[in-house]
Amino acid sequence: MGGIMGLDGVRALGFDVFGTVVDWRGGIARDAGPFLKRHSGRDDPLAFADAWRGQYQPAMEKVRSGQRPFVRLDVLHRENLETVLPDFGIDPARVAPAELDELNLAWHRLDPWPDVVEGLTRLKRRYIIATLSNGNVILMVDMAKRAGMPWDAILGAEVAGAYKPSPEAYLRTADMLALKPEQLCLVAAHNSDLAAARRCGLKTAFVLRPGEQGLGQHADEAMQDWDVSASDFLDLADQIGA
Amino acid sequence: MGGIMGLDGVRALGFDVFGTVVDWRGGIARDAGPFLKRHSGRDDPLAFADAWRGQYQPAMEKVRSGQRPFVRLDVLHRENLETVLPDFGIDPARVAPAELDELNLAWHRLDPWPDVVEGLTRLKRRYIIATLSNGNVILMVDMAKRAGMPWDAILGAEVAGAYKPSPEAYLRTADMLALKPEQLCLVAAHNSDLAAARRCGLKTAFVLRPGEQGLGQHADEAMQDWDVSASDFLDLADQIGA
Repeated sequence: MGGIMGLDGVRALGFDVFGTVVDWRGGIARDAGPFLKRHSGRDDPLAFADAWRGQYQPAMEKVRSGQRPFVRLDVLHRENLETVLPDFGIDPARVAPAELDELNLAWHRLDPWPDVVEGLTRLKRRYIIATLSNGNVILMVDMAKRAGMPWDAILGAEVAGAYKPSPEAYLRTADMLALKPEQLCLVAAHNSDLAAARRCGLKTAFVLRPGEQGLGQHADEAMQDWDVSASDFLDLADQIGA
Repeated sequence: MGGIMGLDGVRALGFDVFGTVVDWRGGIARDAGPFLKRHSGRDDPLAFADAWRGQYQPAMEKVRSGQRPFVRLDVLHRENLETVLPDFGIDPARVAPAELDELNLAWHRLDPWPDVVEGLTRLKRRYIIATLSNGNVILMVDMAKRAGMPWDAILGAEVAGAYKPSPEAYLRTADMLALKPEQLCLVAAHNSDLAAARRCGLKTAFVLRPGEQGLGQHADEAMQDWDVSASDFLDLADQIGA
């Protein structure tokens, strides 16, 4: 793992967000808990979070494959919510749409991992730091304002008009920063995301997030010799001299 | 002139940047001065700044009219630079391209007016603050990092794929923030920009920038009853309760 050598020439860091920057599982469970109790008396919000997130890739795949035009992630999350509610004993047609809209905003209220704000603040001194997420612009903006995440720019799927791991998501982000692919580094906790970025010529920084899937569950560990491999954003900042 | 009443329901402020947030004339003259002296011995950098800026609207008009596809402002600025240099006694073909590229980056290094960083910091507490400029993403990011401007998002022409005052530039920005047009307010020092935004349904905040065209020159004054009219960003923050 090359440390500073590994990121030679890099001018910007593009961050995966769900799982890498914020704890989607804990945040969704927190907001879904009272909703589930109220509507079905159930008390399994973590299972609900997993089920809702489980619809994420299939929904984006319809866009990536061209089955439907690009729609922002808020729209997919809202559709997916209606898909999973029956499995938790709730008929979405019997819930006020405004209440479903409000629950859908739980994705805008996810908390960052404890090292994130300090880590980003350090990394920002030396690099352009931008989101490179499948989350849409207002989702990222709401999340950042709530938690104080100091992004230089909100980029990624909606601005690129393509969902990761489609090459356009990475390459259009680099282009908008007027960078060659190798001057942009993806920071992510997921090997598949990093592998797709590497195929586009981006540099890659792996960050371990053992809490993403919950205690005792499988967490992604670095599966390739990524340019940098870090235990959190502070370790990443240490390694790349920020 | 409604003050807080005038911005009732507004959730985001979209800022024109050249002239409204930063002093393009002083910044371009500062960087062009040594270049002009070196290549032609001339000492009229303010006239050069005016001439370069003078090519701005005609160049964008070719995009707005459909004569050419959208290209980012950095590209137009670079072309415009070659257009104006002969009028200042310089043959651009006899200057190293890297030196022209470097001078072109003067647009990335413009200084904000003195009230901007404090004003934006206050406005950011209550509103989403985003660029709504014809400047491209990396131009805005470089400028913001250099001066410490705390944008929540870099939006505007490049992200929308359309130059102001085309309606798409305003409406796609509102859409990306998941806002109705009337929930977004354009902040600008130019009546024409505000008039176009108002035609799209946006709210409008005029800010007087008497220094934009230089001392003793004509500066835009509020020509319509904009929703708010302010003397600078601190006055704007005072008026809208931020």
